[in-house]
Amino acid sequence: MPKPNAFYAQSGGVTSVINASACGLIETARAHKAQIGKVLVGRNGILGALNEELIDTSKESKKDIAGLRSTPGGAFGSCRFKLKSLEEDAREYRRLIDVFKAHNIHYFFYNGGGDSQDTANKVSQLGKRMDYPLQAIGIPKTVDNDLPFTDTCPGFGSVAKYVATSTKEAALDVESMCETSTKVFVLEVMGRHAGWIAAAGALAQQHSGDAPHIILLPEVAFNKKAFLAKVSATVRSKGFCVVVVSEGARFANGKFLGESGAAKDAFGHAQLGGVAPTVANMIKDALGYKYHWAVADYLQRSARHLASATDVEQAYALGKAAVEFALAGKTAVMPTIVRTSDQPYRWKIGEAKLSKVANVERFMPKSYITKDGFGITAKARRYLAPLIAGEDYPVFKNGVPHYVRLQNQLVAKRLPTKW
Amino acid sequence: MPKPNAFYAQSGGVTSVINASACGLIETARAHKAQIGKVLVGRNGILGALNEELIDTSKESKKDIAGLRSTPGGAFGSCRFKLKSLEEDAREYRRLIDVFKAHNIHYFFYNGGGDSQDTANKVSQLGKRMDYPLQAIGIPKTVDNDLPFTDTCPGFGSVAKYVATSTKEAALDVESMCETSTKVFVLEVMGRHAGWIAAAGALAQQHSGDAPHIILLPEVAFNKKAFLAKVSATVRSKGFCVVVVSEGARFANGKFLGESGAAKDAFGHAQLGGVAPTVANMIKDALGYKYHWAVADYLQRSARHLASATDVEQAYALGKAAVEFALAGKTAVMPTIVRTSDQPYRWKIGEAKLSKVANVERFMPKSYITKDGFGITAKARRYLAPLIAGEDYPVFKNGVPHYVRLQNQLVAKRLPTKW
Repeated sequence: MPKPNAFYAQSGGVTSVINASACGLIETARAHKAQIGKVLVGRNGILGALNEELIDTSKESKKDIAGLRSTPGGAFGSCRFKLKSLEEDAREYRRLIDVFKAHNIHYFFYNGGGDSQDTANKVSQLGKRMDYPLQAIGIPKTVDNDLPFTDTCPGFGSVAKYVATSTKEAALDVESMCETSTKVFVLEVMGRHAGWIAAAGALAQQHSGDAPHIILLPEVAFNKKAFLAKVSATVRSKGFCVVVVSEGARFANGKFLGESGAAKDAFGHAQLGGVAPTVANMIKDALGYKYHWAVADYLQRSARHLASATDVEQAYALGKAAVEFALAGKTAVMPTIVRTSDQPYRWKIGEAKLSKVANVERFMPKSYITKDGFGITAKARRYLAPLIAGEDYPVFKNGVPHYVRLQNQLVAKRLPTKW
Repeated sequence: MPKPNAFYAQSGGVTSVINASACGLIETARAHKAQIGKVLVGRNGILGALNEELIDTSKESKKDIAGLRSTPGGAFGSCRFKLKSLEEDAREYRRLIDVFKAHNIHYFFYNGGGDSQDTANKVSQLGKRMDYPLQAIGIPKTVDNDLPFTDTCPGFGSVAKYVATSTKEAALDVESMCETSTKVFVLEVMGRHAGWIAAAGALAQQHSGDAPHIILLPEVAFNKKAFLAKVSATVRSKGFCVVVVSEGARFANGKFLGESGAAKDAFGHAQLGGVAPTVANMIKDALGYKYHWAVADYLQRSARHLASATDVEQAYALGKAAVEFALAGKTAVMPTIVRTSDQPYRWKIGEAKLSKVANVERFMPKSYITKDGFGITAKARRYLAPLIAGEDYPVFKNGVPHYVRLQNQLVAKRLPTKW
């Protein structure tokens, strides 16, 4: 029997370090040629498995695979596609097994967030039920940092570093100009459900009272009156005010702030702008301050040029650990980051059962949020600070980062049926 | 007679390298202690001179002054304040001369854009008319790159590098996801009148056809039909489309795109969003593609972490040259960057008369814009490429850049009158 092949796929929103996990996984698999054949990667995530579009990574040079470590985005394509439940429709899972059989795949690595861990768990179950030997290992990834059982999720540390750095830089700009110009700056960051990314803005502060002066988290119901009072007090005492707002910030009734402006375009469509312009206008209307706002959007999660070295290292280590778990005979597990010390920050690889990880979201605990709801506590700072530590610059060429582009050659299809 | 002091002020929107010019100026003045006394800096720009709020830079350590080279924003405060014309109201100019006399200031250095060069010119004229020996030297600065007679303006190269890098990174993100998710990404960048910054987005391209696929410049009247056709064709051929839009993009009738959405908030105020959401919605309405958009705003012009080494070097050199010009007895001039070779890029310091610089804007020439108006030519690329070359990273501390904060001690006032 030929050596078993491995399947790997990237799932959901990509990050600036998900390719570092791919790099760790492929390099480690290549180092174990006796046990693992090829690493075949789904083109556009799990869709690649369903469509039997499998990228043959053995065609890629050692140098290009190494370059994945510092290339943002998803080098093989990712997708937003959630498999149905096994009960609802097992056809998708059966198709996966058919494709795996046809290509002698016995290792399944799925790199994604909560949904993906759930999928990996189901694939593992189906393998058992269909008596097809398959080890399914999840690899955590999400800028939202909302997976349980792991100290942090690859992708988050780099977004956190980007948001802290950008907030610090923009705050210096606003402070310079506030005497005669802009007095309020609002930066909108990601985090639809959990406020980890917005919270990281606080790492811009060197001293108490430094910008950002206000952070709006999804975990805290927005209190307009208290918010405006704090903006006004800050401008009066500091001359300017910097606000970091999570895209998921919401009112007590659950309605997103972004919906509240009721902005309509010429066609009557709501929500032309985002949360930042809504909040900025709220301030302008109530207090009259000149404002500027920025929406970082994809810039924040693709900013590999400013990645956290800690994050890159962990992303790589988790990809590597996934292969090691598989070689150790494990299945239905996910390698995790276990923090063993805050200062100096020390961590090791741990392990979580996929059945427990699936579909659990981790929010900012109350003890991480200041009493007034507009900032983070020393405890939160202790947790967050090490995650943005260290720089890991990509190589630059002609003034811009040089990122690898793989050949992404597909292996020949073997199944008579299309999906 | 005590040695003459120098006055320096930062004017208008700050940049990530304006402090590098201050660094070059102060370090050079300190190296000529025999000829120049103190460098006194206007707190919040020229307002500091009017208000007799003069920062004594001799109180700052050598290390902190050196740190200015890698600190964004305006370390002494800047302002948006345009002096009236001499004919309209000469009081402001007389007040300046009074303050300069009181503090033995005979060198006037003004670091800003076109308006500031005009002001410096007038101050020089008034000195002559009032028989007060004063040498006025302008130092160019503007992210918009729209000053004449200089190959480029300090601040621009770094924004250009930020926009090119961010576009490249975000494009990789969108490309990864486009099969099942976002197909169009719109990045809004600065440049109210000239399209230099948006044009720099094209430096993200490694090969022809790479993102960004469309650039919307203020110099080209927006043609909605042609634009939508190009977006649609790009999505069909590439699977996704990346657009970089200048905040100054406008219709043939001169109306800004940002005004056209006619977005109203709950209070009926127009322009909640920016140009990016307007353009994104236009695409959604006509073509139905899922989109994301980002507005970089202050992030782009304060991103010292990603400064162009060329830009930093030139900003420093112009500050240095300003002092050298003054020591050589010159007045009413501005040091410029003269390009002596494209490849390899070579430049030297030149000189322009302030009377000619004042209030002239330099736009993208037609030969820099592709026929369809949505891209830049090889000629433009040859001009732009060297300006973003080289990295000049600040020191990081605790995961974020460490930027200096000066003491900014004011000298005692000597005038009996307030402004």
